[in-house]
Amino acid sequence: MDDKAKTKNPGYSPGLEGVIAGESALCEVDEGAAGLRYRGYAVGDLAEQATFEEVSYLLLFGKLPTRKELDDFTAELHTQWPLPGPVEAFIGVVPPSAHPMDILRTGVSLLGMTDPDATGKGGVLAPPGREGANVDSREANLRKSVRLLAQVPILIANAHRLAHAKRQVQPSPERSFAENLLYLLTDHDPLDTHCNRKSNGSPTEQRVPHEQTKAMARALDVSLILYAEHEFNASTFAARVAASTLTDLHAAVTAAIAALKGPLHGGANEAVAAMLLEIKSRDRAERWVRDALAQKRRVMGFGHRVLRKGDARSAIIQRHAEALSRACGDTRWYDIATIVDRIMQQEKGLFPNLDFYTAVAYLLIGIPRDLYTPVFVCSRIAGWCAHVIEQQDHNRLIRPRAAYVGPPPQAYVPLERRT
Amino acid sequence: MDDKAKTKNPGYSPGLEGVIAGESALCEVDEGAAGLRYRGYAVGDLAEQATFEEVSYLLLFGKLPTRKELDDFTAELHTQWPLPGPVEAFIGVVPPSAHPMDILRTGVSLLGMTDPDATGKGGVLAPPGREGANVDSREANLRKSVRLLAQVPILIANAHRLAHAKRQVQPSPERSFAENLLYLLTDHDPLDTHCNRKSNGSPTEQRVPHEQTKAMARALDVSLILYAEHEFNASTFAARVAASTLTDLHAAVTAAIAALKGPLHGGANEAVAAMLLEIKSRDRAERWVRDALAQKRRVMGFGHRVLRKGDARSAIIQRHAEALSRACGDTRWYDIATIVDRIMQQEKGLFPNLDFYTAVAYLLIGIPRDLYTPVFVCSRIAGWCAHVIEQQDHNRLIRPRAAYVGPPPQAYVPLERRT
Repeated sequence: MDDKAKTKNPGYSPGLEGVIAGESALCEVDEGAAGLRYRGYAVGDLAEQATFEEVSYLLLFGKLPTRKELDDFTAELHTQWPLPGPVEAFIGVVPPSAHPMDILRTGVSLLGMTDPDATGKGGVLAPPGREGANVDSREANLRKSVRLLAQVPILIANAHRLAHAKRQVQPSPERSFAENLLYLLTDHDPLDTHCNRKSNGSPTEQRVPHEQTKAMARALDVSLILYAEHEFNASTFAARVAASTLTDLHAAVTAAIAALKGPLHGGANEAVAAMLLEIKSRDRAERWVRDALAQKRRVMGFGHRVLRKGDARSAIIQRHAEALSRACGDTRWYDIATIVDRIMQQEKGLFPNLDFYTAVAYLLIGIPRDLYTPVFVCSRIAGWCAHVIEQQDHNRLIRPRAAYVGPPPQAYVPLERRT
Repeated sequence: MDDKAKTKNPGYSPGLEGVIAGESALCEVDEGAAGLRYRGYAVGDLAEQATFEEVSYLLLFGKLPTRKELDDFTAELHTQWPLPGPVEAFIGVVPPSAHPMDILRTGVSLLGMTDPDATGKGGVLAPPGREGANVDSREANLRKSVRLLAQVPILIANAHRLAHAKRQVQPSPERSFAENLLYLLTDHDPLDTHCNRKSNGSPTEQRVPHEQTKAMARALDVSLILYAEHEFNASTFAARVAASTLTDLHAAVTAAIAALKGPLHGGANEAVAAMLLEIKSRDRAERWVRDALAQKRRVMGFGHRVLRKGDARSAIIQRHAEALSRACGDTRWYDIATIVDRIMQQEKGLFPNLDFYTAVAYLLIGIPRDLYTPVFVCSRIAGWCAHVIEQQDHNRLIRPRAAYVGPPPQAYVPLERRT
């Protein structure tokens, strides 16, 4: 809390730091023994043993799926791949210079307008005494959530490919969620088991050996699991504030995407990647960090508002980034990262957060850098939707107060007498 | 605070009720002598003596404008009327059944993508140490705010007219902000001083006497002034949560629109109008309310989370609704409303809020009912933008905590062993 605010408004915590703003059964953030848990399950267990599909199911439906439930859920995801016509039309008119998060925010807002369960025009007029009757049911919200999980990767990939004149590719039910995402974003296809097959001549085509592609998909899957949910972070909280008015699910998710765009929230792994690229080689790493610290430049990917003693997710993604580096036979980014990590701990006592080693993995996977935050959306959408549903299950309008710090009462001066 | 929550989490206030979430110099909400003030000026003075343009200027720029400043500001608004091509293209493909708030949310998101000051694609990659450099400056945010003030009424009107196969009409610099909005939404043109001029044959064309049109524009202007700003209401708070990540202004406003769509926030005047239409005549009013109360149906337009002793804005809009009713020679809605008002005070001790008599005015003006909340946006956008700028002037990421109420630690069960 800054001292000025403390003096002026005792009990006021800037940024609501440490303030409990609601209850949630989705995620336990504990720096101690419990670590981070989604609905009671340790994220370490989920990252090592489950898939992103299972974790999404857990967040949305409250339990880990049986084989049958998982198959049905996955089949439903596949059914929802085709984007509605107006969304395809929108992608076609996006200026090539558009920010991918602007495209995603607009596209998801448009998906809300065209969703089969959309409120529709008449819905806003609930008769007195039946306020909220217009709001989509819990069941409709679950259907919308599954659609968004399926549609968001397609929306991101199609817009990106169109803007870069890359050929459009199709997801396949043969691939997992992470494998499809990998293929849509990078052309690396885990279904293609022919190592070293010749390129088809397209400049975007770069075949990598099958075991590398599999390692990429695995690291991506782990990162999706780790990014899926994190309590009342700013984007999730924006979604809950919106949802608390009983607005529709797509509107609340649009608000979350709007918040995630901000560099204090969604852009960190992208900034880490930029830093690794700038450092360029192992032997420049130590010097670069020490210079940055001396110049008081902020080194990205360290520290966390809530997790002051370190981020349990960091060790998990670090292991997978290391494994992926070995599988790819390219440990440069990983080595640079470990040097930066060591010096930051020594000099500043700061620990890497989830974004830090994720950047190493994403660089190796070859995800276009301006899509790192949209990939975050592909994952966090599971948490956002679960929070919107939870908020509306036990709703109370989120409407805090402000401490007034403006001018005292002013006498009105008519226009012609103002100077 | 509900008792269960109080017991479980002492100090936790559901919906952040009564919790101070930040500081603001924009608006003082005081049920006592000070009443409601925008930057120190009593809203009563502003509503009676200023125009919406002056109030927008006050909120955005921190002072009431001189004549010269007001003229420049108004001229700038006029310059910004034309919508960018992609936004016009979007309006052209909107399904006719689309919810107007979905159109507005998507349209504003798209305006963010096409704004001359938009961050652009590369902007997200701020170099370490210069985080935030990509975020648009205060000056750019003021320019964006002025553009939004100008563009939102055009966006609403063009989409509405297209969906209803009405002819497109153009705003004119000869009209005030409220007069243009009136004309765009209803075809009532305060520039048309020929009373009782013959209709041009269009079914949407309904000429009303000049003094009625002027009274409509006046009541609309007053309602715009009264709706322009109200501290940390849910939509404004959603905008501030988003803005606190240093996302762009359009993103934060998109989040606010997403929140305002909810029936617990933006839909109240529309619901009051529906109620007045259902009551239909004076002699049914008392019976209707007493029946509604007996059946425990909620009567819309009464009470307020913050203003428990009454809403100072209500008396102001009531006066103008009454004056407009007399000017129009139609006091039916006003009479019904006063009966409902009296009984609610007698029976429930509840006072009307701003939405209640606004519905009377909007019914007389003939604003299409599904545009009441979009009209609210035309006004509140001034407050939202001012809050986004204020938040980023003294930023602290808004990231509260949740009280965990989920299951205890669960042992992971592999997929094939789940039942």
